[in-house]
Amino acid sequence: MISGIEFAGIASGVKPSGLDLGLVFFREKVNVLSLYTRNRVKAAHILYNKKIEANPVRALLVNSGCANACTGKEGVHDLGIIAEGIAPLLRIKTKEILFASTGVIGRRLPAGLIIRSLPLLVKNVKDSHLDAFSRAIMTTDTHPKVVKETFRGKREYTIIGAAKGSGMINPLFATMLAFVFTDYPAAAAELKRPFVHSVKESFERITVDGECSTNDTVMLFTKRGPEDPQGTAPFKEALLSVMQSLSMMVVKDGEGATRVAHIVVKGAKKKETAEKIARRIAISPLTKTALFGCDPNWGRIIAAAGDADVPVSPSKIDIILQGELIVKSGVEVPFDEQALKKMMNKKDISIVVDLNDGKASFDIYTTDLTYDYVKINASYRT
Amino acid sequence: MISGIEFAGIASGVKPSGLDLGLVFFREKVNVLSLYTRNRVKAAHILYNKKIEANPVRALLVNSGCANACTGKEGVHDLGIIAEGIAPLLRIKTKEILFASTGVIGRRLPAGLIIRSLPLLVKNVKDSHLDAFSRAIMTTDTHPKVVKETFRGKREYTIIGAAKGSGMINPLFATMLAFVFTDYPAAAAELKRPFVHSVKESFERITVDGECSTNDTVMLFTKRGPEDPQGTAPFKEALLSVMQSLSMMVVKDGEGATRVAHIVVKGAKKKETAEKIARRIAISPLTKTALFGCDPNWGRIIAAAGDADVPVSPSKIDIILQGELIVKSGVEVPFDEQALKKMMNKKDISIVVDLNDGKASFDIYTTDLTYDYVKINASYRT
Repeated sequence: MISGIEFAGIASGVKPSGLDLGLVFFREKVNVLSLYTRNRVKAAHILYNKKIEANPVRALLVNSGCANACTGKEGVHDLGIIAEGIAPLLRIKTKEILFASTGVIGRRLPAGLIIRSLPLLVKNVKDSHLDAFSRAIMTTDTHPKVVKETFRGKREYTIIGAAKGSGMINPLFATMLAFVFTDYPAAAAELKRPFVHSVKESFERITVDGECSTNDTVMLFTKRGPEDPQGTAPFKEALLSVMQSLSMMVVKDGEGATRVAHIVVKGAKKKETAEKIARRIAISPLTKTALFGCDPNWGRIIAAAGDADVPVSPSKIDIILQGELIVKSGVEVPFDEQALKKMMNKKDISIVVDLNDGKASFDIYTTDLTYDYVKINASYRT
Repeated sequence: MISGIEFAGIASGVKPSGLDLGLVFFREKVNVLSLYTRNRVKAAHILYNKKIEANPVRALLVNSGCANACTGKEGVHDLGIIAEGIAPLLRIKTKEILFASTGVIGRRLPAGLIIRSLPLLVKNVKDSHLDAFSRAIMTTDTHPKVVKETFRGKREYTIIGAAKGSGMINPLFATMLAFVFTDYPAAAAELKRPFVHSVKESFERITVDGECSTNDTVMLFTKRGPEDPQGTAPFKEALLSVMQSLSMMVVKDGEGATRVAHIVVKGAKKKETAEKIARRIAISPLTKTALFGCDPNWGRIIAAAGDADVPVSPSKIDIILQGELIVKSGVEVPFDEQALKKMMNKKDISIVVDLNDGKASFDIYTTDLTYDYVKINASYRT
């Protein structure tokens, strides 16, 4: 719990069943930093939040079950109406409210339903209701994703993160929704760079299916002054740690995933080369199905590396799978296939591709591609 | 049948069972044109064929079950030994033989096994054995892929195509292996452009899984003079037609596929924009799983379009699914979901995305993503 930050999560009816409407209420104004999807098609909440430029803010309203994306001007307008509905209940200004949505693209928000639920939502708001909030933002997630850490400056501070995300998780900015709250009074100038850095090193280092959502949103809410420079370094560290924990929760809960593979590409001339190869391997359906089948089929890994649109020297490549060197200088090192299959029958897989061509590296986490991914997504709307 | 072109297909033991070694023998020297994978990791047969620059040629030896990729210098050397083994049996020069391989990456060819099988292979060579040849080049294909057409110049000519391909089919040059034979004596100068054009309009217009093989190969074998300019136009037409038929066979036989979707992106300012969007939609796992589930989930289509790294105006986009306008100017047109689901329960799906922003267009064929794709690829090697 962070004093002055209160949460609520209720069932409003946006989804057929379960919690679907979450609220964060800040007793005092807080500063906010946001990063949104790079998809050219952006959900209404992104267009709305960017338009009103609320900062500082007093409230965040999040719904699941409806992405409110591709809903035209009406979709953005709906959010204004809902803001007008909740502002008096919280005794704050309409312009102090931000929104986030997640769920099916193309459907308008049931604004009437939501507005009718607002009194109940506000009544439920409590500093102890983080769990309900974190459940209200879930879609295909199998469990809520909350992280809490403390760190010290002049005094002890708390940082809390809540995220949702399971499918439509893409390599760049792969989050769906993540919210981070802290009572640390960060100076605005010291905030942006660690925020962007932490996102790059967490949500942008995971992929489930290479799909980029219309709704991806990361928000960081911080206390307003007086500043505490003593806490700067510990805060940065805690921020990165919380975002990395959340992103690992997201990838581990990837739709249908049974394993998470950590892909490290090293020995590259440039970091960009390592990154392109790592990302290409991470979205390769053949690599991902082989992971599912515990198949040490390194040919698919090297084929993906060769298809990354960057120069590679196949004859220099080493591949280390679960710590075993299986490819040296581009050709197979004899290995015990049955033993390796057994070693791959784990939740965590390690794939190291050494280009032996330089000193740059990049790493990313991905999931296996399973029957359940197909099942979940062949029938998600129905 | 084409007089002077003979085929064979036998079981040599490269695969545990079934035909796995194919031969095409040309009674007279023929001209050859080849296009190979854009993957930076190239199979040994590609490195070998490029090195020896055989043209004209007398024979083509193809094996399935082993890609002979990532096998180092030894993999290329093996082909030289096999060429030396077969040349005297066919009474041709070693340098008149080309190779193609398909199968698992990373394994050396069992050269001894193949060389021991060569007498049987050569004994089997007959102009009527095209079917055996087309079966010998299959991997996860469920049926052989052969197309035959005739066209007229001064006399009637025949063009025959044989292809294999099912998985690791990528948007650019998505074929695995395809061989086209004709008794039309095309002039060298008139050959290259229609060949490249036909590949662009056929094998580069399909995708199964967005994966680029290390082995992709298309070869066109034509008779050597005297030329027949009267046949030029009919030949070009027949060549394109044969390649398009083969590529449609490949995508329809895509691993685990139950449907093929024709994706047309039109109304773009530039063809490049339409192409990027069409290709992005075509590899979107969420779109492909929705196709499997007969789900008119157009949000996934528009989200993929927005993630194609080209500018789009979401508010201009129309989407027509199975002939029904379901999105107009970026928002949903009310439609009967149950009726549309029923209309999607077909083998052929039509998706038209109109950007309403210009006159350029691009189209591509893709498959749905199914349980069987996962099944086939989780256990391919075992």
